[in-house]
This record gives sequence, structure tokens and C-alpha cells, in this order.
Amino acid sequence: MSLGLGVLGCGSVFAGPYRGMIDRLQAPGRVHVSAVFDVDDRKRCGAAAQYGVDPELGSATNVIEHEDVEVVLVLTSMNEHGPLAAQALAAGKHVLVEKPMATSLEQARELVELARRGPGLLVCAPHIFLSPTFRAVHASVRAGSVGRLLTARARYGWAGPWWGEWFYEPGGGSLFDLGIYNVTSLCGLFGPARRVTALVGVAVPERTVNGRTMPVEADDNAQVLIDFGDARFASVTTGFTMQKYRSPAIEVYGSEGTIQLLGDDWAPEGWELWRNEDASWRVHPESDPHWQWTEGLRHLVDCIETGRAPITRPEHAYHALEIVLAAQAAGSDGVARSIASDFPDPVYDRAWEDAESDRFAHDRRSHDGL
Amino acid sequence: MSLGLGVLGCGSVFAGPYRGMIDRLQAPGRVHVSAVFDVDDRKRCGAAAQYGVDPELGSATNVIEHEDVEVVLVLTSMNEHGPLAAQALAAGKHVLVEKPMATSLEQARELVELARRGPGLLVCAPHIFLSPTFRAVHASVRAGSVGRLLTARARYGWAGPWWGEWFYEPGGGSLFDLGIYNVTSLCGLFGPARRVTALVGVAVPERTVNGRTMPVEADDNAQVLIDFGDARFASVTTGFTMQKYRSPAIEVYGSEGTIQLLGDDWAPEGWELWRNEDASWRVHPESDPHWQWTEGLRHLVDCIETGRAPITRPEHAYHALEIVLAAQAAGSDGVARSIASDFPDPVYDRAWEDAESDRFAHDRRSHDGL
Amino acid sequence: MSLGLGVLGCGSVFAGPYRGMIDRLQAPGRVHVSAVFDVDDRKRCGAAAQYGVDPELGSATNVIEHEDVEVVLVLTSMNEHGPLAAQALAAGKHVLVEKPMATSLEQARELVELARRGPGLLVCAPHIFLSPTFRAVHASVRAGSVGRLLTARARYGWAGPWWGEWFYEPGGGSLFDLGIYNVTSLCGLFGPARRVTALVGVAVPERTVNGRTMPVEADDNAQVLIDFGDARFASVTTGFTMQKYRSPAIEVYGSEGTIQLLGDDWAPEGWELWRNEDASWRVHPESDPHWQWTEGLRHLVDCIETGRAPITRPEHAYHALEIVLAAQAAGSDGVARSIASDFPDPVYDRAWEDAESDRFAHDRRSHDGL
Amino acid sequence: MSLGLGVLGCGSVFAGPYRGMIDRLQAPGRVHVSAVFDVDDRKRCGAAAQYGVDPELGSATNVIEHEDVEVVLVLTSMNEHGPLAAQALAAGKHVLVEKPMATSLEQARELVELARRGPGLLVCAPHIFLSPTFRAVHASVRAGSVGRLLTARARYGWAGPWWGEWFYEPGGGSLFDLGIYNVTSLCGLFGPARRVTALVGVAVPERTVNGRTMPVEADDNAQVLIDFGDARFASVTTGFTMQKYRSPAIEVYGSEGTIQLLGDDWAPEGWELWRNEDASWRVHPESDPHWQWTEGLRHLVDCIETGRAPITRPEHAYHALEIVLAAQAAGSDGVARSIASDFPDPVYDRAWEDAESDRFAHDRRSHDGL
Repeated sequence: MSLGLGVLGCGSVFAGPYRGMIDRLQAPGRVHVSAVFDVDDRKRCGAAAQYGVDPELGSATNVIEHEDVEVVLVLTSMNEHGPLAAQALAAGKHVLVEKPMATSLEQARELVELARRGPGLLVCAPHIFLSPTFRAVHASVRAGSVGRLLTARARYGWAGPWWGEWFYEPGGGSLFDLGIYNVTSLCGLFGPARRVTALVGVAVPERTVNGRTMPVEADDNAQVLIDFGDARFASVTTGFTMQKYRSPAIEVYGSEGTIQLLGDDWAPEGWELWRNEDASWRVHPESDPHWQWTEGLRHLVDCIETGRAPITRPEHAYHALEIVLAAQAAGSDGVARSIASDFPDPVYDRAWEDAESDRFAHDRRSHDGL
Repeated sequence: MSLGLGVLGCGSVFAGPYRGMIDRLQAPGRVHVSAVFDVDDRKRCGAAAQYGVDPELGSATNVIEHEDVEVVLVLTSMNEHGPLAAQALAAGKHVLVEKPMATSLEQARELVELARRGPGLLVCAPHIFLSPTFRAVHASVRAGSVGRLLTARARYGWAGPWWGEWFYEPGGGSLFDLGIYNVTSLCGLFGPARRVTALVGVAVPERTVNGRTMPVEADDNAQVLIDFGDARFASVTTGFTMQKYRSPAIEVYGSEGTIQLLGDDWAPEGWELWRNEDASWRVHPESDPHWQWTEGLRHLVDCIETGRAPITRPEHAYHALEIVLAAQAAGSDGVARSIASDFPDPVYDRAWEDAESDRFAHDRRSHDGL
Repeated sequence: MSLGLGVLGCGSVFAGPYRGMIDRLQAPGRVHVSAVFDVDDRKRCGAAAQYGVDPELGSATNVIEHEDVEVVLVLTSMNEHGPLAAQALAAGKHVLVEKPMATSLEQARELVELARRGPGLLVCAPHIFLSPTFRAVHASVRAGSVGRLLTARARYGWAGPWWGEWFYEPGGGSLFDLGIYNVTSLCGLFGPARRVTALVGVAVPERTVNGRTMPVEADDNAQVLIDFGDARFASVTTGFTMQKYRSPAIEVYGSEGTIQLLGDDWAPEGWELWRNEDASWRVHPESDPHWQWTEGLRHLVDCIETGRAPITRPEHAYHALEIVLAAQAAGSDGVARSIASDFPDPVYDRAWEDAESDRFAHDRRSHDGL
Repeated sequence: MSLGLGVLGCGSVFAGPYRGMIDRLQAPGRVHVSAVFDVDDRKRCGAAAQYGVDPELGSATNVIEHEDVEVVLVLTSMNEHGPLAAQALAAGKHVLVEKPMATSLEQARELVELARRGPGLLVCAPHIFLSPTFRAVHASVRAGSVGRLLTARARYGWAGPWWGEWFYEPGGGSLFDLGIYNVTSLCGLFGPARRVTALVGVAVPERTVNGRTMPVEADDNAQVLIDFGDARFASVTTGFTMQKYRSPAIEVYGSEGTIQLLGDDWAPEGWELWRNEDASWRVHPESDPHWQWTEGLRHLVDCIETGRAPITRPEHAYHALEIVLAAQAAGSDGVARSIASDFPDPVYDRAWEDAESDRFAHDRRSHDGL
């Protein structure tokens, strides 16, 4: 009953993070890699050799249509995400697609439609909703711990990649690569956005990538404001312009208190809660320091095995994409944009909790490493 | 040689913070209060009794024109700041004016002009540039510690006053009351702003003030983006919508590191610096926990006594006002505004350092309170 | 009904901290200074001039027997504490004595006896039990928040005085000057100690004091272990050997959790509590940053005015003294010492709470200094 | 050239932590498991099956004398450590022995002697000297960053195991299991100890282990004082009596500053340094969050492959053992004990640095998991 995986894109996202997750799922026989493709011969052959599969598949289509592939992982460069995910869903396969799910709203809308009709499930990165820490913050907020949400800040940035020219080329940029995490998290807590404005630009005109100097043609610096309606706002600070920080990843201010996620939303380091009625901060240490941001794959496998719907819905990824595109537009002309789409609140159901407790049972590390 | 002070407005800003500072300056005989005025009889008489001056002065003009008044403190409600400060400068007096210096750019421009022509000096709140901690951050940034400034965040907010209806009435609001601090600080580090956009609104439509419920008609929630040119940005999060925080007041991200002011910009609690070449955070504990945000008065007295120019210039306050007004405008229609004005970088000269070391000598508290 | 104060010792402890407290009590007419004495003419005359009292009193006895002196403050060098406090109590006066209450157990026993017989009240420094933060920790512990107390650490040290030769002369030392705070705090939480051992010595053989090099003949470095019975222990780390720290002042580990007082016990900066059942730290910011370690004087005045008993009892100070003397003895020969004395748990009664809430009402500082 | 490993003791210390390290060394062909032994049939057979080796070896001697075993890992219960390690060294094998190296000084002395004569290398746990963070602290201290070391604190404890009855039986206890880490670390920084005193006892008389209540007959609570000569001291707080902490693992106070190792000494979370001349804390984030406390095995393999001497010497483990035994003795009668042994300062040579940089090259994780 092992699920066959087809991998599209064998670059760095595959080679490190996803391979680790695949290996962990393969050990107990839940998955196996059936087919791989990358336009780069070296990467394709390397991945094929690791898994003992055909190194000579000539196209992504060969992977998608492979009879032993039930799940397609779309880990290619960003502009191919939408078309490949659509093709795989149309072929009846389950799909995990890295962020962004597509680079245009038309493509993204098609994916949402295909996923609705089924039979394939669609899981879109980022998978931050699946971290126990985000889950705890979400549950606390929904339980009213801080009252009505009024304002918020989020930040995710770093010095920027020294590999991968595409990050700095048209179609790349920090908003798509980094900002989308904060946008996804904030909407997960506040609900759908209604309006967006932003400052977006290139703050460092030249970068050294893979040892060579290149001009920067995609945004490397962005500040985004999101209006969640009823004068409730949030800001997102992102960019390849931040060397180091020491501040919460997400700060949410409500009418009765404040709640914060520490670390980064893709790598949480606990959370903390101020309630006026407590008159103290409750500081929760990270409950799962080994949580990986590739957990979406395990979640997809869980859902396929059990027949339940994923926690994260394609509609949420669509909404986040609309916000990022609106921020780019507002950044170019200084005019705020309305946001039209909507998405359902995540439902952490009983099945998810069972899968989680099962995961903890296997991953458990007692004190002192024993 | 004691300077005569005239106080306009004897409400809460006078009664607590400024009175404490006046008392400290009065003890060594540097100042004395010569005249006070408030439209509220009770407040006026109370202040007059404290200082043994005439309780029956009938107008602000009587204070300004009082022959023993050399320095006028404008501590009234916001819409009177500009006209009264102008009148006092025109009468040749020195002026300290609380924030905002005025509520329109026209009034503010007149004040800048009057101060330029002299003879009276004009010191405008907020006085945050005078805190040793801001000074240390400014010096570190100007020395290149974090390289070229690229992006930044600042925040100042709280749950909002339960006294003073005017905070929530037209002409009040969180941008003027709180946001102006962060705006002033950020411009002090980045230099003049070039463009502004914002989300501004009323998030809590009704408040209880002095025991009575009232509708809120001035902004109580705002997020502002500032463009400092060359795609270098900052965000300001402010509002009467934040119950508590646990994050730096100001975060500045440069090409070589990060620098942060902790606490609040009007009540610093130290600062910290990451430099890539250090590979560590340098955490500086607060050097002057007893620093008061009313230090502007002492600074004005220092300047009058020594004949030097104040560190903080009216041009800077004018610039901050232009930004706040632009944020309000952008918040109402979603369109970014250009900023036209400029201001000189503060110069912490030798005289300032001497005055500071003198102050430390008098305020010094050694270990264990001895 | 203003109480007359007699001050013995007009040195640094008086000049800074206690004078501030006296001034605050004098303003509302609760106390006045009636007589002062110091063997140093300059200090005596200075203090006398400040308060407009006779500068020519020839001895401590003149102060103690002064007809307008109801309360005697013993702020002299340490070896005079016991005899002067005894003389004042014998004369029927109320007494506040700085730490240590005496330098021998015999003297201390006499003080306890005199205070028991009355009529004068005896309040012994340190006054840490009176800080709202210690009070909150004590209440939490007594309410069982961390279960049964099992082990603990406390620390108080600094680089050491550059004034006051006596600190480094026989009869001085870090245990008496600093260690007694931690000892007092820990016993306040654990109850009476049963046994003590220690390492005590001179780690820096020469010091520069008042500009001159001198040999160090009193302990400047000490580590003390306290056995509270039933194998429940605590350590105290003290000395003029600590340049700076960044750790809790007091850490108490119980069977169900951990509780910590931050800052220093004489200058708390909040407290934090871990309970296993919470699975989070509750971090309480300092509730009273302006609390002064001279609060014992205000408390004594409260008690005299209202006729109630002080929170801190002389028996507790006696017990702390026995521990410090035992630590010195154990430090000299490496043999643990038993502790014989006992003391009653502090009772924070309704009267104390009323006095506190009254104090808060007067000291209250709302947001933004207003 | 793969080294053959023989494993003695296949319990929890082997099954989790060391197996992970063995697997990482086996992947590149540096080691292989040749023989295993455990008195428990189930554990022995399980380990044998994992590595495909003979499950029927009848004794530890069979492992030690196995011709394909070059390195013996002694991971048994504590009282067998000494005899087995001695037997393996006498047979000319390299040995890694878990802490304590032995339970008597006689046994330990024999091990030191055997290791001196060779040919087998002896590496004794704990391996904390090998963490990059301890190394950084050691280097900073040796470079004089905090001046002369004067006093220190260290702590390592937790709630205690709910498995493994032996922890609470005679021969077990918190000093051997936990306290030895702090003792080893402190001596690594201060050099050899000269005297020891302690409070040691059973604070929780009954525990539930493996679901059954049992009496506790070994120390579960201890406070130890160490005298490093010249009145320079340290305290160690340890026990199965600490539910949670939030304080530095090791605090070292020198004449010019303070240096602290955060986290736990076996699981560091960075370090921080105050120097008076800096007037700020330099906070170093953890450089190697994936460092494992089983690194001693990799280090032993490095040393065997390259012919160099291990960083950690058996003499250091002997010294730590002498201190722990002295603490137990002092805890029983309240009399301080002298310490006789000595040990050489660790030398982090060029070979070690090369091995480290090689390790980083293989373990490197770039940003975002890539």
C-alpha cells in the first residue's frame, strides 16, 4: 500500500528538506519514489540513482503519467508550478506544490477548481499551519484569549541567497519567496484580507550569486500593509535586506491581550501570550523543535491514507497569492488594492490530532537524548 | 540669573512630568515660574498656588507678555499649540511646545520661520533625541555599524487613555499622540522621508472615558509605511489598540547588521547591535533608567544659558508633522503621498556632551543606591 | 502628630537612600527630623543644616534621649549597630537598624528581647520582604504554586565599593554587606535553616579605595550552602567579585514547578513561575519599578501610626545573622555548622495591604508619565 | 579501513544517542559494528539484528576479544564501567567509556595508567569539551576575556527518570548522573580543584519508576562547593529535583567580566560575555544546534584515524570522579575534603580544528533548510 511519488524538480528544495521527509516516510513503507525529472541532467541522474529509478525520463509529463506515481511533488522553479500542478491534477494525481502555487491568479484559480472536482488532493506550501506551535496560537486566538484582533506585525527576511540567480530575476523576489509566509500566517489568524498597500523595491541593486555579480531585477525589500476590515490592520516586513533579527515572528494585538509566535513562522521557537486578566506573559517553550517545514508531504500522505481533507486548503493559498500580487501592484503605483477572494478557516479535526499524537509517539525524545 | 518660566496649560502634561522637571531645575536656581494660565479655573489656581504667582491672569497673552517670562511652555490642547507658540516667538520669548508643534503645515512653517529669525529659541517635543540611548544608537548608525540602512520597523501603542475625551475627538488620535514618536525617531536615523502610505482607522468605535461611554471619532489604529528613497523603507505600528508588547521599539536593518532600541523611544531600556563581523549581539543595558521625556526643558535652559543651538531643530518637527498629515491623507483614500520637506541631521556637539556629563555628575546613583 | 526622627550616622546610607525616604514622609507631615549625630563633624553639620536642627549634639546618646525623638535610625558603621539599637530600645524609642542588626549573637539576642518587651518597635534591614514583588513570590509559594520546595539558588554580588575602607577591614566583608540579603530572602521562602557550610575567602588581596591601595582583610568572595532540613538545600553566591550578571536573583525549585525573582532581591525586576500543569512560564513584569529598599522606614511609620506589628520581625534578622556567622565559621575550618534559632513566617495582614494600596494611590504613574 | 566497533551494553544510552552517531559514521564507511553484548537477551538480540552480527555472544569478554573489534564502547550500568574498560584497554583495544569512568578511584587510576601505556586510546564521557560552544567559551577565558576567574555557578538537573530503577539505587544518584557534567565543565575552565564540600541527600523519598513506586536510596538532590585555590570558588546545583529552569548553565565571574554558557553543558544554546571595557553583553547564538553529546565517539574515531591524542584526557575524568566522591563524603559528615589529583588543560590543536571544519562542511545547513 506504499504510495508512489513522482518528483518534478530535483534542485536544492528537493535535495535537502524534502528528501529528508521522503526518507522518513519511506522507512516505515508509507511511500516510495517511482519517477523523477529535472531539466538538469546531473540533478536528474543524481536523484534517480539515489532511488534506483529510471534516469532517462524525458519530461515532466513522463513523471505525471507514470503508472506507479500517485503523488506528484512540484518542486520546480516558480513559473512552472501552476502548469505542472494543473496537469497532474487533471491526470487524477495527488499534488504537493511549493510556493507560490502559481504566478497568476488565472492559473491559481484553475488549480483550486481542479482540486475541488477531485479526485486528486492538492496541498500547497507553505505548510506552516501544520506546526504544533502555529496550531497552538490559532487555537488560543479562536478561543478568544486576546479578544478581538485589532492590529498585528509579522516579519520574515534574511540576507538573501548567494545561490540561485532566479531569486533576483523577474518572477522571483522576496515577496514570493519570503513574504508569502507571513501573509499566509496572518490570514490564518485574522481571516480574509480586504485591502492591501505596500512599498516594494530593489534596495541592493547588485548581488553576488554563485560567485558572480548580477543586477537585481526582482524586489528584495518590501513592507506590506493588510486591511482585514473594520479598521483592523497588519504589517508584513520582508526582504533580502535583514541580516539578523531578535524579535517575534508574528505579533497579534487584540482587545484583551497580545499573542506572539517566536522564531520564524516556518521554524517556530515557541509562543507567548499576554492577557490583561492574567497580568503576566505566558511563555510557552517550543514543543516540537524538530518540526520540519516539509511536513506538508507527511500530511498529504496522511490524508490520502485516511481519506480525509487536508487542513490547508487551496483557497487559502489562492488568497495569499492575490495579496502578494496586490502588494506588488500597490508597490509600483502607490495605490491600495482591494482583495476579492475568500477562504475557509482551517479546521484542525480529530483525524489531524490523531495523526499528530501518532507522530509524537514515533518521534519522541525523552530527556538527555534517551 | 534664574530664567522666568510662563506655563500655558496646567493639565496632566504639566502637573506630572513637566512639574517634576521644573522642580529639579528650580532647586539649583536655574529657573522659576513667573506666570501660569489655563482656561480651567481650578487648574490655573492650583498651579498658581504651587508657585506663588498670580492666579488671576486672564489670558495666555498675559503670560506671554509678562515681563518676567523668558521661556514659554506651550502645554495646551493640540490645536492651540501653533498659534500660542507663534505668538510667544513673535514676542521674543523662548518656547518649548508639546507635540505636535502645530496641526497644519502652514502654522508649523510660520513657527520654523520665526525660530530662524530669532531671538527666541524653539524646542519642539518629542524630545527623544536627547536620551542617551537614542544618542548611542544614532552615533552607532552614523559610524556605520550596520552599514547602509535598508529597512526598519517601529512601534508605539497602548490600550489608550481613560481620561481626556479629546484624544478620541476630531483633531486627536493615535497618530498625533503616539505615532509621531516613531516617525521622529526613524527620520532621525534614516534622514528625510520621500513618500508615505498608511492604513488608518477606528478599530474600537466606543470608549469609556472619565466613566462615560463616548463614540471614537479620531484614529485609534494606524499602520504607516515610510519610503526614505532608494527603496529603503520603514513601518510604524501605532494605536490605542495594543494592550502590551514584548518586542524592540525600533528595529533598523542595515547592509552589515541590525540595531535596535528597546523599551519605548520615549522611555528607552537599552539597545542592541548585531554586526555580521561580530557574529554576536552586543546588548547594552539602559545607561540612564531615570531619563525623563521632559528633558527638552532642561535642554532648552542649557541652550539659553550657554548661547548654543538646540540639538533638535524645528525643521525636524515640521518634517514629522508633514509625514503624519500625509499618513492621515493616505489612510483616507489609499493613495501614497510625497513628502516635500527636509531637515538637518542632529549634531551632538561638545556643549551637549558637557551638559550631559554635568547632568550625570549630579544624578549619579552608585551601586546599592549609595 | 508628626513623628520625630533621630538619625545616627549621616554617611552615604543616610545621605542618599534614607534621606529620599524621609523627604517623602515629611512632605505630607508624617515625620520630621529632630536630631542628628555623626562623629564626622562635616557630615553631622551638613545633615543638621539640611533639617535645621542643632549641629552641636555631642553624642549618639543626645539623639537617643532627645525629647522630640520617637524613632531612632541606626545608620552607623556595622559594629555600632547593636549597642546603639539596644540603647534606643531601652530608652523606649522605636528603632530602624541597618543590616546587620548586630555583629554578635549576644547583642542580637538582646535586641530581640528588648523588642519583645516593648514599647518600642524594632525594624531591621534588609527590608526586602516589603517589596510587592517579594510579597507576590512569597504568596505564590505559600499557595503551593511550585509544590514542596526542594532546592534553590540565590546570588547577589558586584565589583565592590571604591569608597568606604571598612568594607574590606575586619568586621566588614561581603557576607555581612551582600550575602545577608539572599539569606534573608531564602529563609523567608523556605523557613528556618538547620545547617550551613561555606567557602569564604579573599579573592582579590588588594583594592583601591578612595584612591589608595589597601590590603583586603575581610571576605570578598563567598559561596554558602544552607540545609533547610529533609534534604532541602539552597546555595548563596556572593562577593565583591562579580562584575555583572544576567540571571535570576533567586531560583526556587519545587516538586511541581519553579519560581524566580528577577533583578536583585533589594531591587526586583519582576518574577516568573513555571508550573508543570501550565507547561509555560508566567512572566510577571515588575509591578513597582520605583520601589525603594528603604521602604522599611515607611513601614515602621505605618506601624507606629496604626499600632500594628511590623511584617518583618527581629527574630528573622537574628536567624539570618546566625547563618552568616555560621558561614564564616564553616568557611574558616571546612566544617558545617548547625543552626539553632527559629523565626515566625511573615504575615502580610490586611493592614499591610491597606497601606500598600494607599501607597499605590499616591505613587501611581499612569502611562506616558501622566 | 573501516573500524570495527564492539558494543557493551545495548540499553537506552546505546539505542538512542550512540546508535545515531554510529549510523552517521557508518554511512561514509568509517566504522562498522562487529560485536554486541548485553545481559538482557532481548536487547542483545535486537542490537545484533540491527547490525547483522552474532546474537549469541555469551559475555563481554567475547566482544572485547573479538578479532574484528578495534574500539570498545562501554555503555553498561555504572559499576561495570571500570572493570570492562580496563579489560578492553589491557587487550589493546581503544575504549569509549560512559560516565563515570569508574566508581572508585582505584579503578579509575588503573584506567589512566593503562591509557598512558597504550596502545589503546581512552575517551571518557562526558564529551562536553567537544562542543563548539564550550570550545568558544574556553578559548575566550584562556584569552583573558574576563580576567582572572574568581567565582562561578553551574546547574544541571531535571525532574528525574521515570525509567531505570538503578538511578535511585545505591551506586546511582544525581551526582554521578548529572553533577559530573558541571564538575567537568568548571574544572575545564578553572583548572584543578583543591577542596570540596557539599550538601547531598534524598529530597523525594519515593519515586514511581516504570509504573511502580520504589524507595529512593541514592542522592537525588545535591549542592556542591568547589575551591579552586586562592579563594576562587564555584557552586554546582544538581538533582532530580528541578522541574524546569531559565538561567545560564554555567556562569563564570572574572576580575574583568562575566562569561556564561547557555542551555545545558551537554546541549549548549549559545554563550554570552560581559567585559567591563565593552560595557555590553555580547550574546552569541548557538553555532551548532545539531551538536550531539555523543560526539566523543566521532572524536575517538578521528583520533584513531589520524594518530593524534584526544582532546579530553582520562586524567580529567579521574579528577572529576575524585570531586564527586569527595562531595558524597562531605555530604555525609559535613566536613570539606581536599582534592589531590591534577589534570592537563585541554589543547584544541590544529588537527581538532581541521576535523571540526570538515564536520561543518558535511553537516552544513544553509538558510531555510536548503
